[in-house]
Amino acid sequence: MLEAFVSQHTDLDIDFDFDTYLSYRRGRLEESLTRYFSQGEPALLWEAMAYSVLSAGKRLRAMLVFAAAEAVYKDCPLKASASGLDAIDAVMPLAAAIEMIHAMSLIHDDLPCLDNDDLRRGKPTNHKVYGEAMALLAGDGLLMLATESLIERTDRRVDRQNLLDVTRAMAHATGPSGMVGGQVKDMQFTGAEDSKFDIATVESIHAGKTGALIRFALWAPAKLLGASAEKCESLARLGEIIGLAFQITDDLLDVTGDATTLGKTPGKDEATQKATWVRAIGVDGARAKLKEMEAEGQNLIEQNSLDNATAPILRSLLSYSIHRDK
Amino acid sequence: MLEAFVSQHTDLDIDFDFDTYLSYRRGRLEESLTRYFSQGEPALLWEAMAYSVLSAGKRLRAMLVFAAAEAVYKDCPLKASASGLDAIDAVMPLAAAIEMIHAMSLIHDDLPCLDNDDLRRGKPTNHKVYGEAMALLAGDGLLMLATESLIERTDRRVDRQNLLDVTRAMAHATGPSGMVGGQVKDMQFTGAEDSKFDIATVESIHAGKTGALIRFALWAPAKLLGASAEKCESLARLGEIIGLAFQITDDLLDVTGDATTLGKTPGKDEATQKATWVRAIGVDGARAKLKEMEAEGQNLIEQNSLDNATAPILRSLLSYSIHRDK
Repeated sequence: MLEAFVSQHTDLDIDFDFDTYLSYRRGRLEESLTRYFSQGEPALLWEAMAYSVLSAGKRLRAMLVFAAAEAVYKDCPLKASASGLDAIDAVMPLAAAIEMIHAMSLIHDDLPCLDNDDLRRGKPTNHKVYGEAMALLAGDGLLMLATESLIERTDRRVDRQNLLDVTRAMAHATGPSGMVGGQVKDMQFTGAEDSKFDIATVESIHAGKTGALIRFALWAPAKLLGASAEKCESLARLGEIIGLAFQITDDLLDVTGDATTLGKTPGKDEATQKATWVRAIGVDGARAKLKEMEAEGQNLIEQNSLDNATAPILRSLLSYSIHRDK
Repeated sequence: MLEAFVSQHTDLDIDFDFDTYLSYRRGRLEESLTRYFSQGEPALLWEAMAYSVLSAGKRLRAMLVFAAAEAVYKDCPLKASASGLDAIDAVMPLAAAIEMIHAMSLIHDDLPCLDNDDLRRGKPTNHKVYGEAMALLAGDGLLMLATESLIERTDRRVDRQNLLDVTRAMAHATGPSGMVGGQVKDMQFTGAEDSKFDIATVESIHAGKTGALIRFALWAPAKLLGASAEKCESLARLGEIIGLAFQITDDLLDVTGDATTLGKTPGKDEATQKATWVRAIGVDGARAKLKEMEAEGQNLIEQNSLDNATAPILRSLLSYSIHRDK
């Protein structure tokens, strides 16, 4: 039954089930990552990288990559040219690369000199298992493998300039103007009094720390597949919305969430005096902002026909990023 | 006079002076790096990155990039097409990117969890000035900027597939199969008894830790400029020779060098029980190996006409990597 769904998924002519969709997509991603990380020298370094990359997470970023690819595939030049390039195959190396970068950011964030966390998804953090030096180098290694594997594994039929643009944008989203820059700002404002930061500060921290990579995850597949500039821009904006919504929800869950469902103790932001949406505009303010984001996102999807009527993948992902309880 | 040298350098029809050559090339590189690192947000992150990238070093890797570009420029397609692309301009973003990666490797190596060094080139190390968290993130940022700036700043007339190949090879030379992998091996063998490692171990550590990026520095300009596969391969092999020779010389200087000339205290390898050439094959063995490397390198340069008779740039760089006293 899953196979039937799968073989037909690009035509989207069957009843859409979001959970089945996610579970199948995750399966293909894990398969690709497991194969890539199954070998390599020095063995202990590869083991340390695999430890973090392969530990199951939501895989939100990869799911966004697949959803964007399906959103533009129906009228993208690569399909029209009948080259036979499957949308998901075309963006699999991209999805894997984004997950490597995400894993790397968790490894370095967990280090004693940053968040000093011992547990991640219920397992000991990378440096707790492999030591600080190896965790540092595993993160560095993953950053480079993301770039290398993206270029090496992306199908030759993908336009060369588009692949260059995507590789460059991935570095931009990850570096000082994106993830790394957001992490620095987060660090600078952690422990600051409420009066020291405002909405603009919180928005700028998260636009970098989590937003840039999520925005990239939706924009890049469209660019790789040669979609129109307009489609690329709509997806980038949707990425900004989902990134923000995801973060606001995170901040809310830290205040209103349930420890058992969350799988971690809430209240950590308050204890560490993080610059959060809740501290900036309160619980009600954050909820109102979420409603606003959700409406803008739904509009964007409808107006740009980013979803097929029978398979509302992007709508479901937007919804999920807001209405999840963990 | 320097200007006269400069305006004519690609024709190489004046008396060649190696020091003048190096000083002019370094000047153009520093100018390019200083401009690139003069702005950016978050300001403190950019300051931390600039602190390490702009602190003067030998700039060996960038010098190799320029030398290789000049070695192949005379008969490369880009010159033949009369596009007016200057060899040095074409590889300046590459030279800058390699220096960013080198700076990043020093920042992370100096961290307490690795070498725990307080001084680098007579100045406090990055984490001593900016703290461990910022130093960690400055290194991550530099890795991403290297990729981003290489793609963004390389002239549009450079073939797109060649630029992709070079970007991929840079990540490969820096990642688990290159620099990062070598660092891991170095860490694993530091403190090991002499009987625990042999020449193959030492060679494999250094081929990764310093050799891969030096090899890349000579191969990549040839690839970018569209040189023949044969020229690219000769330069790559010369890179391996120079990388090895440079490292053997380093190991020898740590035993036989003079503290005043070196600018640092020799004997550190012995004290920390590093896996070095001297420990593997002794001072005489290391000297003999150097002689061998030098002869092979000179042969390679001659047989492949990699130097102009009046401007033996590569021969001088090979010589320098061996006969330096610091």
